[in-house]
Amino acid sequence: MASMLWACVTDFFTYETTKSVVVKTWSVGVINRVFQLLIIIYFIGYVFLYQKAYQQSDTGVESSVMTKVKGFGYQGNQVLDVADYVYPPQGAGIFCIITKVIVTDNQFRGLCEETALDCAAHTDCQAFYGNNLVNENLSLARGNFPKHMTSKEIKTCTYHPLTNPLCPIFRVSDILNITGQDVNTLAKKGGEIGINIEWKCNLDQDVELCKPEYSFSRLDAPFAHNPVSQGYNFRFAKYYKTDDGKDYRTLLKAYAIRFDILVTGNAGKFSTVPTLINIVAAFTSIGLGTVLCDIILLNCMKGAEQYKAKKFEEVSKAQIEASLSQSQGSQLSLKPETKKSCDSGAFSLSNDPVP
Amino acid sequence: MASMLWACVTDFFTYETTKSVVVKTWSVGVINRVFQLLIIIYFIGYVFLYQKAYQQSDTGVESSVMTKVKGFGYQGNQVLDVADYVYPPQGAGIFCIITKVIVTDNQFRGLCEETALDCAAHTDCQAFYGNNLVNENLSLARGNFPKHMTSKEIKTCTYHPLTNPLCPIFRVSDILNITGQDVNTLAKKGGEIGINIEWKCNLDQDVELCKPEYSFSRLDAPFAHNPVSQGYNFRFAKYYKTDDGKDYRTLLKAYAIRFDILVTGNAGKFSTVPTLINIVAAFTSIGLGTVLCDIILLNCMKGAEQYKAKKFEEVSKAQIEASLSQSQGSQLSLKPETKKSCDSGAFSLSNDPVP
Amino acid sequence: MASMLWACVTDFFTYETTKSVVVKTWSVGVINRVFQLLIIIYFIGYVFLYQKAYQQSDTGVESSVMTKVKGFGYQGNQVLDVADYVYPPQGAGIFCIITKVIVTDNQFRGLCEETALDCAAHTDCQAFYGNNLVNENLSLARGNFPKHMTSKEIKTCTYHPLTNPLCPIFRVSDILNITGQDVNTLAKKGGEIGINIEWKCNLDQDVELCKPEYSFSRLDAPFAHNPVSQGYNFRFAKYYKTDDGKDYRTLLKAYAIRFDILVTGNAGKFSTVPTLINIVAAFTSIGLGTVLCDIILLNCMKGAEQYKAKKFEEVSKAQIEASLSQSQGSQLSLKPETKKSCDSGAFSLSNDPVP
Repeated sequence: MASMLWACVTDFFTYETTKSVVVKTWSVGVINRVFQLLIIIYFIGYVFLYQKAYQQSDTGVESSVMTKVKGFGYQGNQVLDVADYVYPPQGAGIFCIITKVIVTDNQFRGLCEETALDCAAHTDCQAFYGNNLVNENLSLARGNFPKHMTSKEIKTCTYHPLTNPLCPIFRVSDILNITGQDVNTLAKKGGEIGINIEWKCNLDQDVELCKPEYSFSRLDAPFAHNPVSQGYNFRFAKYYKTDDGKDYRTLLKAYAIRFDILVTGNAGKFSTVPTLINIVAAFTSIGLGTVLCDIILLNCMKGAEQYKAKKFEEVSKAQIEASLSQSQGSQLSLKPETKKSCDSGAFSLSNDPVP
Repeated sequence: MASMLWACVTDFFTYETTKSVVVKTWSVGVINRVFQLLIIIYFIGYVFLYQKAYQQSDTGVESSVMTKVKGFGYQGNQVLDVADYVYPPQGAGIFCIITKVIVTDNQFRGLCEETALDCAAHTDCQAFYGNNLVNENLSLARGNFPKHMTSKEIKTCTYHPLTNPLCPIFRVSDILNITGQDVNTLAKKGGEIGINIEWKCNLDQDVELCKPEYSFSRLDAPFAHNPVSQGYNFRFAKYYKTDDGKDYRTLLKAYAIRFDILVTGNAGKFSTVPTLINIVAAFTSIGLGTVLCDIILLNCMKGAEQYKAKKFEEVSKAQIEASLSQSQGSQLSLKPETKKSCDSGAFSLSNDPVP
Repeated sequence: MASMLWACVTDFFTYETTKSVVVKTWSVGVINRVFQLLIIIYFIGYVFLYQKAYQQSDTGVESSVMTKVKGFGYQGNQVLDVADYVYPPQGAGIFCIITKVIVTDNQFRGLCEETALDCAAHTDCQAFYGNNLVNENLSLARGNFPKHMTSKEIKTCTYHPLTNPLCPIFRVSDILNITGQDVNTLAKKGGEIGINIEWKCNLDQDVELCKPEYSFSRLDAPFAHNPVSQGYNFRFAKYYKTDDGKDYRTLLKAYAIRFDILVTGNAGKFSTVPTLINIVAAFTSIGLGTVLCDIILLNCMKGAEQYKAKKFEEVSKAQIEASLSQSQGSQLSLKPETKKSCDSGAFSLSNDPVP
């Protein structure tokens, strides 16, 4: 009983490794190593360094956007400030700069006047964006004010795609120029401009290196070939009361440039699971090189049949049956060393033409 | 020195392949091939074609929504337009259609009147949604106006889940019917309706084939079993001034149907890293078939012991030690060809019971 | 012809398995099994149970937030309600509680008065959040009202991070205390507070177990080292008309605490593709243990050369060429059994120095 258990334990603690054929031939050897080298270069260079496959990436960002518009507009000879031409006033991620208003004053029905505000065309009209990014999955919180700039520098800078790409203060006319829009047409019909803040964060590095990239696009461009509703406008009313308590209103159709701040992000951080899977894939791919070399070795090389003979050891049912009948004939005497006898029997059938 | 280096180089450029046992038995051969076929079908059919495992997918969409509500409402015998019953007016992704107002006119305290607006029940009340999708990670920008429809068709169409699923103009009463809501109850108490725009984009195909799917749901449904706040309402005030400059206000409690446009998306694009990993997984899985066949071959087949003998070549410590002492005995003469002698020694111990 | 086809079919339905060397040595056997055990523990414990690698996870949540602020504020001896101090009124995910107003009454130019609203400091000021989560990719819809609480309990509860972490009603002063803000400074200068609702959903379990976690942070904190715009304020105007129809306005600069409700989520659900890939990776990793054991066996063990001889069967070009010339010499007679002869030829060259 104890000896059987011991035998079991001994059988368990063995080590099984594949038997290999080592082919000492230059041609296949070089192909093999070159192939392995290519796979290693591909995995280290492309998969790991370039694609950063060792990182778990997360594109689901939740962000909070704070905006402030500054500057004056002119309507005829009247000066307008942000309280007049920005809607809604609280500085969220979507805001409209009203560029033209058609006023329908209900008190005096029938009278319709069109007035233009030229804020968009005016250079002192600036928008200021504070954006901070929150990603709880990777515990991340970043603001878009560059740390190397002083408060004064940030206050006085103006965004420029090449010379000042990190300044979070944008001149409206610059944005319209970058998107290639005709300012006058846009101011007349209204439009929707997207300000995309793209965060590409490598969280394995200092979080301070995770910088925003700004880009601008005309968001209503995809609707250009179906011009159902050109431009952008909305109606709202101002409500008044007469002395005797009667309501009346002024209806306003406002043509506006609507700015949508769209925050996208891609944060990557080292994670063991994708790293492991890619390492395993790399090792397995190196192993797959064997498949190619086998095809060459066993088909295209001189002496292919000899290589086949070395690599493959055939065993057919007939051999096994012959071996079985043989071992049964000498069953009693061989019992104590069945395995060894089987080995030899099998071997002698296929590999031992040596007399 | 040079010859040693040469030997090293020669040793490096070798090719190692596993030695295989080929079992020419129908039963195991058929099982093997059927198993491999099943794995190939599974990977090609399910993993690659159905699950599109060759694609990198991204669910983090950032979108911009533009809405416009049209139509008239009636309050008693007064006509109301969008400036009166839609809040906020600028056409963002969340907007409220006010269906009932409780007015508390502060000037005349104590007077409370309830009035109902029947926009929701009225058929000419339409909502118009422009939605465009931006996904910077896959550089994608799409609008929800179908290209095959002319401007006129889009202007005059009305969404219908079966006959017109791509029309971006929705009748409010249709939405309420689809969500199975009682229009009158909803108009009385207010409610929150979600309009889900789901983009499923296969970016390996033409981006024009990436179409939106609309669905509607009552968003306050999850709160139905805890009826803390039934319906949806909010309070706001209109401010007035008397002749002598004193402020007064009218407080309004507005019951409204709030529409939330929720844009979700799933964009997939061919990417080498997941493709490679899945191909490697496929090849490895095919190799795992060997495990099953080995179990059958080495345990359930007639002649299992013979097959074991063919597959496994045993080497024990005792054999190695015997071989070591043998080779040490003839050390000098064998030195130049150590490897060969070891080979033969090892072989003769385990495989050569043939006299 | 038919017999050739039959031979092809027979050749196809064969089974190829690697020939293995079983090393019956305790030391390597134990190392092998311990290594395999560690890999199994790592995969089952860390990769599958802890990291839930069998799940497909989705961080792209789309949610709808409904808020309601309740309570009174005081301005001097005047009482203010939500219609006066909450903006915008409709209860969306971003709302501002106005804490200080600087009024510039245009009618009487030059007169500027500063008044403070003390809602934030007052304890009966509560915010109520209804949040429901929609994720179409995993068909998920959840609300943040706990099912085990009755309507009355929800109505009367107040959030507390330890004693009542699921109650969706928050006292403003509590939020400010948790974020460690000085209420008076915040009320004076304004600020931005983030209320993060984090959903961690394991969709393999009951959806009811998928609970929200609330956390609070000062969102303008990342801008603290560049104090460009301290606090949070915005300007808006109230418009009036004189008896004779002339417009005038009151400009208000409102200092407010802005609350941004940021909903993040991470929903995981069993999926076959990542499960399969990780299982394959696990099996392959177990196989990689062989690499380590081979290094030990073939380099560090006593009798390493003998083990090498057992594992590697060398075949060089010279051998193949010798075998070729040999078989060509007896080509005619050997033809019917080419394979067998090759086998034996190859074997005799490398393994049969036994006379």
